[in-house]
Amino acid sequence: MTIENISANKSFGGWHKQYRHPSTSLHCAMRFAIYLPPQASNGQKVPVLYWLSGLTCTDENMMQKAGAQALAAELGIAIVAPDTSPRGDDVADDDGYDLGQGAGFYVNATQAPWNRHYRMYDYVVNELPALIESMFPVTDKRAIAGHSMGGHGALVIAMRNPAAYQSVSAFSPISNPVNCPWGKKAFTAYLGRDTSAWAEYDASLLMRKATEFVPALVDQGEGDNFLTEQLKPEMLQAAAKASGYPLTLNMHEGYDHSYYFIASFMEQHIRFHAANLTD
Amino acid sequence: MTIENISANKSFGGWHKQYRHPSTSLHCAMRFAIYLPPQASNGQKVPVLYWLSGLTCTDENMMQKAGAQALAAELGIAIVAPDTSPRGDDVADDDGYDLGQGAGFYVNATQAPWNRHYRMYDYVVNELPALIESMFPVTDKRAIAGHSMGGHGALVIAMRNPAAYQSVSAFSPISNPVNCPWGKKAFTAYLGRDTSAWAEYDASLLMRKATEFVPALVDQGEGDNFLTEQLKPEMLQAAAKASGYPLTLNMHEGYDHSYYFIASFMEQHIRFHAANLTD
Repeated sequence: MTIENISANKSFGGWHKQYRHPSTSLHCAMRFAIYLPPQASNGQKVPVLYWLSGLTCTDENMMQKAGAQALAAELGIAIVAPDTSPRGDDVADDDGYDLGQGAGFYVNATQAPWNRHYRMYDYVVNELPALIESMFPVTDKRAIAGHSMGGHGALVIAMRNPAAYQSVSAFSPISNPVNCPWGKKAFTAYLGRDTSAWAEYDASLLMRKATEFVPALVDQGEGDNFLTEQLKPEMLQAAAKASGYPLTLNMHEGYDHSYYFIASFMEQHIRFHAANLTD
Repeated sequence: MTIENISANKSFGGWHKQYRHPSTSLHCAMRFAIYLPPQASNGQKVPVLYWLSGLTCTDENMMQKAGAQALAAELGIAIVAPDTSPRGDDVADDDGYDLGQGAGFYVNATQAPWNRHYRMYDYVVNELPALIESMFPVTDKRAIAGHSMGGHGALVIAMRNPAAYQSVSAFSPISNPVNCPWGKKAFTAYLGRDTSAWAEYDASLLMRKATEFVPALVDQGEGDNFLTEQLKPEMLQAAAKASGYPLTLNMHEGYDHSYYFIASFMEQHIRFHAANLTD
């Protein structure tokens, strides 16, 4: 396997770097970014926070706009941001912004033409952490977080792999995709019309039946245009109540779906993960 | 005059807003962004930091990538970011990224075809502050800062209007434009081949003969690809030494020309301006 370093920027005493590598899960070249805090250059191994971005995004949105590096540098945490889908001319796509490239939804697709490349669940759960832990000075302590479609991905992945993550957080997650237009469209395409296959990718359904817990933090803006139709945090809240899941859901008056919201509360998320990662 | 609010995002308890207005200086519609900290919603008037961006940028680069809002909210400072040039189909332009739209260089052009619209100096020094101070809950205390071409603009504007600004700062400024390719190309086009007209837009020449001082902070990455050919901070340092100008120039090993560098040291710049604005 060849992996190529394609950019490097010093940031808060550490390094932001982008890499391209051939993905065995996705059968295409993938780019990811990593922020390595200064501690990682000083002989220490640091824990890793994985960040999953939302529809239309790449590894760059969070690294450029979320303002996470200051805290990651202070607290000694690496951040890894994968892309949001497989990419390339030979990778199936759709004209919509909410299906195909940029919209992988962190599932393993079972339906043609998606099932060859769209295996973001496997990529994020298995391939990427193995690569990161073999290449960089990091421990095997992991946290996972994300925004919108990526918040959905983070919650689903943490709940299905509770031994692999110390903590999970989300901004404005798609909390109940089986019951919203974005989720129904993507799951129909990637997983097929049989909705029984959808439940393993729905954070509210998983949380309701959970018996092993990962500390979970969710922040949601009340001024978010997608709140009622697409995001439905109340379904997650109800599921947490039913199972006793350790979920903290914070609603914020006036905040929208943008990175201006994410940046405003990123410090609390990084501190939450740091507290769990360094237990 | 009609001014239109075209976006609003809650951010760190305050508001990021974009406006469009017809500019009398530039003879075109202009967009700017303002960050109003929470103090401005609570009946207080706050001082203003003006931010001038670099080549190819708009009001959005700094607002999305610099991570300044956290500190502006903490310290009670508004931030205003104008665009980097006049814009529009009837505004003269050039195929180069370093001339024409996106590359106004904060001068008043005297040469055709630029002289009708390219009057960013007047816009930033006069029109925009008058507009801001008439529309928003701000005091008349001003600071000014910028990056690269915008660092050049901030230094020039502060030195030519020392009574109007409490402090000035720059990241990676074009410190001696009369002696670098970016500056020579732009000044030849906007100001003509007679280089005697260039001196009033050169930070190092202005600093060398300055008799009234504005506290000045400059940060520069030593890994910046443009350092030697385009930026020349050593010329600014020498000028400050000659005139006794209160300049602090910090060189930083490994940092480049990007917003990853800017974000890493933005807190120090905001605190520097806050200390001068609230004297």
